[in-house]
Amino acid sequence: MKAAYYQGNKSFFITDCISHSPNTDEVRIDVSYCGICGTDIHIYRGHMAERINPPQVIGHEMSGTVAEMGDDVEGFQIGDPVVVRPLDPCNHCPACKAGHLHICQNLNFIGIDSPGAFQASWNVSAQLLHRLPQDMNMETAALIEPLAVACHDVRLGQIRLGETVVVIGGGPIGMLVSLVAKSKGASVTLAEVNPFRLDLAQNLGINAINPVEENLEQYVIDITDGAGADAVFEVSGSKRGIEASTELCRTRGRIIIVAIFPEPQPVNLFKFFWREIRMLGVRVYEPEDYEEAIILADSKKMPLEKLITSVQPLEALPDAFHSLDTNLNNLKILIKCSD
Amino acid sequence: MKAAYYQGNKSFFITDCISHSPNTDEVRIDVSYCGICGTDIHIYRGHMAERINPPQVIGHEMSGTVAEMGDDVEGFQIGDPVVVRPLDPCNHCPACKAGHLHICQNLNFIGIDSPGAFQASWNVSAQLLHRLPQDMNMETAALIEPLAVACHDVRLGQIRLGETVVVIGGGPIGMLVSLVAKSKGASVTLAEVNPFRLDLAQNLGINAINPVEENLEQYVIDITDGAGADAVFEVSGSKRGIEASTELCRTRGRIIIVAIFPEPQPVNLFKFFWREIRMLGVRVYEPEDYEEAIILADSKKMPLEKLITSVQPLEALPDAFHSLDTNLNNLKILIKCSD
Repeated sequence: MKAAYYQGNKSFFITDCISHSPNTDEVRIDVSYCGICGTDIHIYRGHMAERINPPQVIGHEMSGTVAEMGDDVEGFQIGDPVVVRPLDPCNHCPACKAGHLHICQNLNFIGIDSPGAFQASWNVSAQLLHRLPQDMNMETAALIEPLAVACHDVRLGQIRLGETVVVIGGGPIGMLVSLVAKSKGASVTLAEVNPFRLDLAQNLGINAINPVEENLEQYVIDITDGAGADAVFEVSGSKRGIEASTELCRTRGRIIIVAIFPEPQPVNLFKFFWREIRMLGVRVYEPEDYEEAIILADSKKMPLEKLITSVQPLEALPDAFHSLDTNLNNLKILIKCSD
Repeated sequence: MKAAYYQGNKSFFITDCISHSPNTDEVRIDVSYCGICGTDIHIYRGHMAERINPPQVIGHEMSGTVAEMGDDVEGFQIGDPVVVRPLDPCNHCPACKAGHLHICQNLNFIGIDSPGAFQASWNVSAQLLHRLPQDMNMETAALIEPLAVACHDVRLGQIRLGETVVVIGGGPIGMLVSLVAKSKGASVTLAEVNPFRLDLAQNLGINAINPVEENLEQYVIDITDGAGADAVFEVSGSKRGIEASTELCRTRGRIIIVAIFPEPQPVNLFKFFWREIRMLGVRVYEPEDYEEAIILADSKKMPLEKLITSVQPLEALPDAFHSLDTNLNNLKILIKCSD
């Protein structure tokens, strides 16, 4: 079987290797598709070098089928279509003890801190599997991981029917947050500057505006009769995005920090006081978010397939990374890992 | 009767004037005591010039008795001891319509945006009164307004039994937040650098440490077995305080922004993402916070009287403002407004 090894310095090698049998608590999965995540691009750019151990197979946005099971694994059958929730908590730190296992203080994020899914055959703990409906489209299923991120973000943001929601940043997660918030009955506006992504958002049925060409704050004031937005998702990771967030929020509005900000950013704390604004950081997902994402993806109510810019064979993985690194006119590229 | 008029430029004049009868929906109050608030000091320093209309009587942390009632006022009697909740919302802005009347977008804060209580006789809308127990100490009662701020902050911070709470900043509100959080069964540590205030905190039964002399982050890690604080109240208004807040929080910990930060501050948003930290701004109080503050003050379980540095006659008000402006070895100064 083939595997793609990241070796640092923006380079991979693709090689044949031998699949091995799973441990007693593991399954071996034939990986169908694995998407390239923004985090994978961070790795590619060398930003997470302390967590990677090259040469290493990375990748975690996958779909696949159970190919082999360890002796102690119950509840699955060979051929079951599955996705992996790639979080392996330590179970003994204060975060785990409080039930915050997904943000464990010693989290093993599979595909980053340990080997991932850009390979035809992948062994993982059976505890991390979620079974898919039998007839699920396996390309769409590779979007369940980022969709679970969006489900988590919208759930913790407590988005309710009729609320006005602004999403700042139209990458894959911003698009998915917009779609999930819309599915709750919120009125969503996506702010994005890239024309390709603005077009795609409109093609997905998302109301999208370019804040460089239109005054976003005035727009939100106008559509809310002077109140401001109930919730703002900051998904752009930009200084301007965090500035806008406090300006856009109504009294007791919520700012949900989805993006990763490597450096501290100036935040208008007076506005927090004055309007009793709330802000929350959100990270990855909990099991219930995966379950919701599977139901949403299976319902076919969302045009998830439109998020997929292209599907490439494993051999084209280096080119796909290069393309995502250099060209914003991409959204999600899937790698087909086995036949 | 006497009244103290603020005339700008750090100066007041005290003058005799004639009390007038209340409007039909008002009461005339004989003001017993009125405390000097941090906001009054902001006014004194010229920071809120756009909201003040000198010469103007300011002051809002008061206790008093009903002296005269307008024809339409019901539910009160002459002689009733009362406090005034000095917030007069517009009732028609989006904040009011959402029920956030205390942070109305057109709020009239009585004693700032309209005449206040540094006078022997004060006319206010009867809707803003809270009746006190008959035998209440009227000096302590003048602390109900700042105590209601602390009740609001702790209520919105959702402080629960057994939680570890850090309060950064030991002015009057920081002391009161510490006392109210302790009354909920939280384990409270107050961080303060001023020796006078550190001594006073210990005298109030609050565990207080000096973060210049002791490593606050290590202290909190140690007392929480590596978890971090459940909640951090930022009451210092300092850059270092906001920096420390994100470092001190456990996973899903809460940062409560009590202080007024005139300028945007650098905030470690990565920490928000990584630990799913929540932050909320809190401002003034709602009616239920006043009711809780009255019960707490009346219960005599808190040593509120120790917060009062001195009680001064109205004639000494200019000196009292000067003292609070220049000398941190003060906490709360009350002005005795009528005999």
